[in-house]
Amino acid sequence: MASTGANHKDLENHHSDDLVRLCNPNVAQMKEDVLYHFSLSTSTHDFQAMFGDVKFVCVGGSPSRMQTFIRYLASELGLDQPGEEYPNICEGTDRYAMFKVGPVLSVSHGMGIPSIAIMLHELIKLLYHARCTDVTIIRIGTSGGIGLAPGSVVITQQAVDAAFRPEFEQMVLGKRVVRSTDLDEQLVVELLQCSKDLNEFPTIVGNTMCTLDFYEGQGRLDGALCSYTEKDKQDYLQAAYAAGIRNIEMESSVFAAMCSACGLRAAVVCVTLLDRLKGDQISSPHEVLIEYQQRPQRLVGYFIKKHLGVA
Amino acid sequence: MASTGANHKDLENHHSDDLVRLCNPNVAQMKEDVLYHFSLSTSTHDFQAMFGDVKFVCVGGSPSRMQTFIRYLASELGLDQPGEEYPNICEGTDRYAMFKVGPVLSVSHGMGIPSIAIMLHELIKLLYHARCTDVTIIRIGTSGGIGLAPGSVVITQQAVDAAFRPEFEQMVLGKRVVRSTDLDEQLVVELLQCSKDLNEFPTIVGNTMCTLDFYEGQGRLDGALCSYTEKDKQDYLQAAYAAGIRNIEMESSVFAAMCSACGLRAAVVCVTLLDRLKGDQISSPHEVLIEYQQRPQRLVGYFIKKHLGVA
Repeated sequence: MASTGANHKDLENHHSDDLVRLCNPNVAQMKEDVLYHFSLSTSTHDFQAMFGDVKFVCVGGSPSRMQTFIRYLASELGLDQPGEEYPNICEGTDRYAMFKVGPVLSVSHGMGIPSIAIMLHELIKLLYHARCTDVTIIRIGTSGGIGLAPGSVVITQQAVDAAFRPEFEQMVLGKRVVRSTDLDEQLVVELLQCSKDLNEFPTIVGNTMCTLDFYEGQGRLDGALCSYTEKDKQDYLQAAYAAGIRNIEMESSVFAAMCSACGLRAAVVCVTLLDRLKGDQISSPHEVLIEYQQRPQRLVGYFIKKHLGVA
Repeated sequence: MASTGANHKDLENHHSDDLVRLCNPNVAQMKEDVLYHFSLSTSTHDFQAMFGDVKFVCVGGSPSRMQTFIRYLASELGLDQPGEEYPNICEGTDRYAMFKVGPVLSVSHGMGIPSIAIMLHELIKLLYHARCTDVTIIRIGTSGGIGLAPGSVVITQQAVDAAFRPEFEQMVLGKRVVRSTDLDEQLVVELLQCSKDLNEFPTIVGNTMCTLDFYEGQGRLDGALCSYTEKDKQDYLQAAYAAGIRNIEMESSVFAAMCSACGLRAAVVCVTLLDRLKGDQISSPHEVLIEYQQRPQRLVGYFIKKHLGVA
């Protein structure tokens, strides 16, 4: 018995670097874990059977976009069947949508840091309960660009806050806690190489500013509230550009902070829908925006195919 | 001509207190205003024709809940037709959902301050372009209670932040800006009276804490990350209770700040799904939670009926 225990421990240690880990000892002691915003529970769902084989998780704001992505990926991986639909695993709720094909999970996260943070807490616990190993997670999103042609794809080097600091600040029990926003450096290199292989659209590596608001928080002049001038806005965006920031979105900082804390290889790949130096409104034709939104999907789809030996 | 102009101006001044106003002079100068996250634009939609009669706006996190609410309200107001469906006005996007019956608009806002802030910027501009007057806006939501039986309804006296301050702090052009979170005092009194008239469920007036995170940000012990003890959590929640806080949610502070800045009478009415002093997980049966979520709808539905002389 003692020997078996030791062997089991060795085995665990051997794989411990690859296992998704929690930064919370309480969860291991819970008899049941209700992932409320997924409408899933460890007492009603067999997480290891449902999710144990997951190696890639792709997340994005819009539920329909994440469904489109799983259909696209199924086709690219040769895993689709004629007429097959991909059911929403979180059909018991409309907070998030989740789809799966083979080793790939596709999950929506809504808009903004709080919305993606709720999703990530429950997703990371899901992967933990499922005893997933060696998981890569990539956010495929939309953003505003700075000094880039619309449609350009930005792979995030470093997520920064509205004051250009590589930090995610959070209130815990009423006190400010600051976490780093590191992303996986090797993953950035791999994704950039994938884009070069594909050679379909401009892709750059740059810093990504993550804000808590889309209008005043990103210096837009067209919100319901605005108390600054065009010049103030331009000064701010130019300073952001000088700090290496090439796009602005609303989820990357907490995504980077939580994923790195829990041992997930993480990357952020966003297309830019407009150049903020030239305007604030997203007024490109619907078809153009749809094609732009497919670009991160094509890039990350190729990356996954390459890893699975299908590309 | 001069006389007509003056009369027009008098008329405008006469009604100016009731008109939805923007805190941004730029919008009046824009030839087109694209409300991107609603998939509506002033150049493709006649806002005055579509929304000019709106007097009540109800907002809540979940799209399906806001659709249920408009069906319920249509029935209560005697405005429903057999077999009639209420189309999603924002059908061109899955960011938000919007429904209308008579003078009532029902809009989803997703989860968290950034998500509701995007919606409010575009909603307030929509009401402005539609030249709406005398608009009351009420958030009907869910929350965690402190020291209340689950299912209790809380009408918010004051929205406070995670440090119990009646403030909403925001980053504008990289600098901290603090706004007050006042709500309409008379509306609180009216809503409480409605609950007394109804006499269907416990309703109290209390302060509401608005946080940026559902897990660590609300002192939960069951997230993917947690670095404090049960005692730390209890101390925090007891201090919140002592500060008059009776429930915790994730949208009220920016809702209060933006609505009061733009001249909208605003209230927050949330049901509590659990007592946070007794636990963290929302594990009540589905049917029980569904009934709880109807309570703010019944209260606000009655309020609207009363105002329209139908109750």
